[in-house]
Amino acid sequence: MNHLKLAGRKNGLRTVIRVGQLRIGQDLTVIAGPCSVESEEQTLTIARAVKRAGAGMLRGGAFKPRTSPYSFQGLGLKGLKILAKARAETGLPVITEVLDTRDVGWVSEYADILQVGARNMQNFSLLKEIGKVGKPVMLKRGMFATYAEWLNCPEYVLDAGNPDVILCERGIRTFEPWTRNTLDLSAVPAMKELSHLPVFVDPTHGTGRVELIRPMAMAAVAAGADGLMVEVHHKPENAMSDGPQALLPEQFNVLMGEINRLQDALDASTDSQGMQVGKGTPVYGSEDGKVREYAW
Amino acid sequence: MNHLKLAGRKNGLRTVIRVGQLRIGQDLTVIAGPCSVESEEQTLTIARAVKRAGAGMLRGGAFKPRTSPYSFQGLGLKGLKILAKARAETGLPVITEVLDTRDVGWVSEYADILQVGARNMQNFSLLKEIGKVGKPVMLKRGMFATYAEWLNCPEYVLDAGNPDVILCERGIRTFEPWTRNTLDLSAVPAMKELSHLPVFVDPTHGTGRVELIRPMAMAAVAAGADGLMVEVHHKPENAMSDGPQALLPEQFNVLMGEINRLQDALDASTDSQGMQVGKGTPVYGSEDGKVREYAW
Amino acid sequence: MNHLKLAGRKNGLRTVIRVGQLRIGQDLTVIAGPCSVESEEQTLTIARAVKRAGAGMLRGGAFKPRTSPYSFQGLGLKGLKILAKARAETGLPVITEVLDTRDVGWVSEYADILQVGARNMQNFSLLKEIGKVGKPVMLKRGMFATYAEWLNCPEYVLDAGNPDVILCERGIRTFEPWTRNTLDLSAVPAMKELSHLPVFVDPTHGTGRVELIRPMAMAAVAAGADGLMVEVHHKPENAMSDGPQALLPEQFNVLMGEINRLQDALDASTDSQGMQVGKGTPVYGSEDGKVREYAW
Amino acid sequence: MNHLKLAGRKNGLRTVIRVGQLRIGQDLTVIAGPCSVESEEQTLTIARAVKRAGAGMLRGGAFKPRTSPYSFQGLGLKGLKILAKARAETGLPVITEVLDTRDVGWVSEYADILQVGARNMQNFSLLKEIGKVGKPVMLKRGMFATYAEWLNCPEYVLDAGNPDVILCERGIRTFEPWTRNTLDLSAVPAMKELSHLPVFVDPTHGTGRVELIRPMAMAAVAAGADGLMVEVHHKPENAMSDGPQALLPEQFNVLMGEINRLQDALDASTDSQGMQVGKGTPVYGSEDGKVREYAW
Repeated sequence: MNHLKLAGRKNGLRTVIRVGQLRIGQDLTVIAGPCSVESEEQTLTIARAVKRAGAGMLRGGAFKPRTSPYSFQGLGLKGLKILAKARAETGLPVITEVLDTRDVGWVSEYADILQVGARNMQNFSLLKEIGKVGKPVMLKRGMFATYAEWLNCPEYVLDAGNPDVILCERGIRTFEPWTRNTLDLSAVPAMKELSHLPVFVDPTHGTGRVELIRPMAMAAVAAGADGLMVEVHHKPENAMSDGPQALLPEQFNVLMGEINRLQDALDASTDSQGMQVGKGTPVYGSEDGKVREYAW
Repeated sequence: MNHLKLAGRKNGLRTVIRVGQLRIGQDLTVIAGPCSVESEEQTLTIARAVKRAGAGMLRGGAFKPRTSPYSFQGLGLKGLKILAKARAETGLPVITEVLDTRDVGWVSEYADILQVGARNMQNFSLLKEIGKVGKPVMLKRGMFATYAEWLNCPEYVLDAGNPDVILCERGIRTFEPWTRNTLDLSAVPAMKELSHLPVFVDPTHGTGRVELIRPMAMAAVAAGADGLMVEVHHKPENAMSDGPQALLPEQFNVLMGEINRLQDALDASTDSQGMQVGKGTPVYGSEDGKVREYAW
Repeated sequence: MNHLKLAGRKNGLRTVIRVGQLRIGQDLTVIAGPCSVESEEQTLTIARAVKRAGAGMLRGGAFKPRTSPYSFQGLGLKGLKILAKARAETGLPVITEVLDTRDVGWVSEYADILQVGARNMQNFSLLKEIGKVGKPVMLKRGMFATYAEWLNCPEYVLDAGNPDVILCERGIRTFEPWTRNTLDLSAVPAMKELSHLPVFVDPTHGTGRVELIRPMAMAAVAAGADGLMVEVHHKPENAMSDGPQALLPEQFNVLMGEINRLQDALDASTDSQGMQVGKGTPVYGSEDGKVREYAW
Repeated sequence: MNHLKLAGRKNGLRTVIRVGQLRIGQDLTVIAGPCSVESEEQTLTIARAVKRAGAGMLRGGAFKPRTSPYSFQGLGLKGLKILAKARAETGLPVITEVLDTRDVGWVSEYADILQVGARNMQNFSLLKEIGKVGKPVMLKRGMFATYAEWLNCPEYVLDAGNPDVILCERGIRTFEPWTRNTLDLSAVPAMKELSHLPVFVDPTHGTGRVELIRPMAMAAVAAGADGLMVEVHHKPENAMSDGPQALLPEQFNVLMGEINRLQDALDASTDSQGMQVGKGTPVYGSEDGKVREYAW
């Protein structure tokens, strides 16, 4: 992938993006929240719960790309204002999706991170427009995209002047109908190998089944993901979109505990190896010089 | 697919769209031209050649969605003006792709048909915007889209007020590397069964190999396609995009002859069957009452 | 595909296989019959009907590879004896599937052509065993196989000493659930380009929907297929396997008429072109020197 | 998947298979060794190394299913004798692949576990034959198989009388060319949910890239896999098959250390939760009553 002038890994340095207190690409970051912003009460309830459980950022969709024009399309501006209110109360930065070139400018006034969804991964007009604003963007992998196709998309954003792109694996389409998508965790070490950008994993869309979220979230962390994006809803049966795949706040709370214990164990294991990593080791430096662990 | 309020087949009638002298959905229509509008000389040369060979419409891209930001992105407005000139000289209506919601209005002043490419099939903002203009749209199938996902997209256009949608099968992605895509000709009878909209086939992108265009174009016509879209270039080796899959004007001329003989044979065969089609036959009426041939 | 020592096309000559009166690879050959041999009465009824309609060969499974061990597994030897009886009465050669290396020898005493099913395409032990017997084999494409993987399989048979291999495209698995498989008609001209072996198409398994069989059979012939394999059953609702996709004898009869008219039209078109085919034309010679038509 | 009479999960109990000292399905088990048995020296060298690093079982192929008949096909009986010698010296049980129904009986005299490869997953004759012998079988997932198709295959073995089936995820084919296959780790919790059989993961074939084996092995363990199968070769550049994806013995040794630390951390985390797992929790009991950890 030598054609990647800006997104490709060129030396040992990795991108670390600061959003408030977060150091994305350096510390494990968990983003949680509802699929759609449905009401102030719903969003604030969930925002408080995920904050309490230890999430670092709040997610919520105000513009929803739906297969059918007759499905709920999101609250739009009203939804963005609710997100702003949740941020003001909880202190959590917010991430929300943008769909239309005409909305990029004003949506970026509300969002701390803009999200480009899987269906828009190759909406090149949208990527160019996002390249002009001063907010980071999370670029989800298209459900059919190869690594090379995916990595060409941050190239559009970076080339237009915005250096802060986060990649997010969210599952690809395969022949398996039991899961909604097939979460490709190989994408995590692959993106670390091919690019300097942070890589997140979304086990919610990546599996579409509540019972798979915990094991796949654990696996994502063990594979080296920089963060997770998880959907949480206190009343999944009433959710206006994707309710069946949302965790309850108490499930999310248990998950956060397990993830933190796992990350601690991985960090301890890394420290014990210290500098003994051998020849050919891709040693990833970061802002503060901490050495990352991929050890061949 | 009962959820399709507007795009679904509800009775025997089929949509026929008049563009100039063309009756799209009724008479076999062949659209031909270069992948990209590159210059006035290039476009006019090709336009004259395809007109001479019997094409009914000219294609040419002024905005190109490219995987890499460093590839040729199209001539934009200048390209649209060249297309207008080619139409003025040859009398051929023109079809061209639109990528951005902000461009829909003014591009539709130049184009006779707007094209939505495979990568934008589920760009719902774009579809809604196109639903507001008074020009027909050709909606290409996404390279990964199921029939149900595809048919939800015209629903956005139709619901927004534009009744003139043409579907175009252009190949799906499979594991086969020898062809660029796998042309799914089953989509032709499937769309006839599920929808009342005209269905075209693009054997150029659908195979990506010059030597497959002729047999697959013939097969598409035999499967009942309402039209074909074929890329033609007089100097493929110099083309700014997709040259290797373009037919030479003389190859296109031979193809037109074969297609016309095939269509004549199919029409004769249909006539000889007349009204003897049996129980369960989906008899498709059209504007002028001519009976179509699917005979079970 | 230069590694194909035996299956690859090396010069203009094509394999023609004589089975009784049939010249497979030269004349369009239609194979028809039930999915499974269920009883003498069932098989003879269908054999007579397809003979009457003009089929050249009878198909019928005595060993059935089924996803579940609790599904009907075929009549075995009893089924082979029924096929032999049908052949004796109608004069139609028979083709039947073999699943196990231990069965190849004795099954080939009953069958005129052995069939290797899609699931066994890469059962290399089976292919080697078939390479030792003196009967032609029809090798179905695996539902996930690339052209290169497929063409390596006849290599096993040819290398073991059996020169008579027929390829059969029967649909690949894609993301489309409306059809059972996606019939890849590009495989027809591709196999003509890459190999000298005859290529058949099975629109029954390739679509899994009765209403698609006719248009896709027509398309296969227009694409240049050497033959078709079609399932026919006089009581589909009672069939022990795959009933819903079987044509009724009267539907098959209509189809044969249309196919024959189409082939006549294509032959006439070829003759009218005569020797005017241009530079780079892959002119396929055959046993009797007749020139085939691929015209670039 | 209610149709699974024997392979489906019916109550909380899970299958545990004892092979020598191993309790497969209960303790994390790592199988390692070369792709192919090439020589006594090669196999013994690798066997000693993986034993030293802590592997529980030795792998090595004596019959190789190869795409081309001109590739190395394995040493056959000679290879099995070498495996027996390696077992005698190291005490490691051995697993090896069987391809042909005629070989099942005598190969099972040499192997401790029989392996059915991805290409033979639906070789139903082979599965039935294996159902008759008294050795466990590891059934690899076909590279295109759905969970339902996969789980129907142990059904053939179990129904024929052999209760000891191990499942092994080894990657599925997707559109990603950078990896050899896409390792579907969701299969681990999915098989735990749908079946009582042990589930292994093969990160070697599942990625095809040395640098991905460690992160994906770690992820597999975190996802709850019962074991791993990893290819190791001391001279990968000279290997007769799949050398480029084999770990060096010293890399394997590092991996074993990291895996063991990870498993310890996961076990500690489980114990600390004890019996507090909530409503709807699939608590998996095993032979000795130890509670497994899936905690929703």
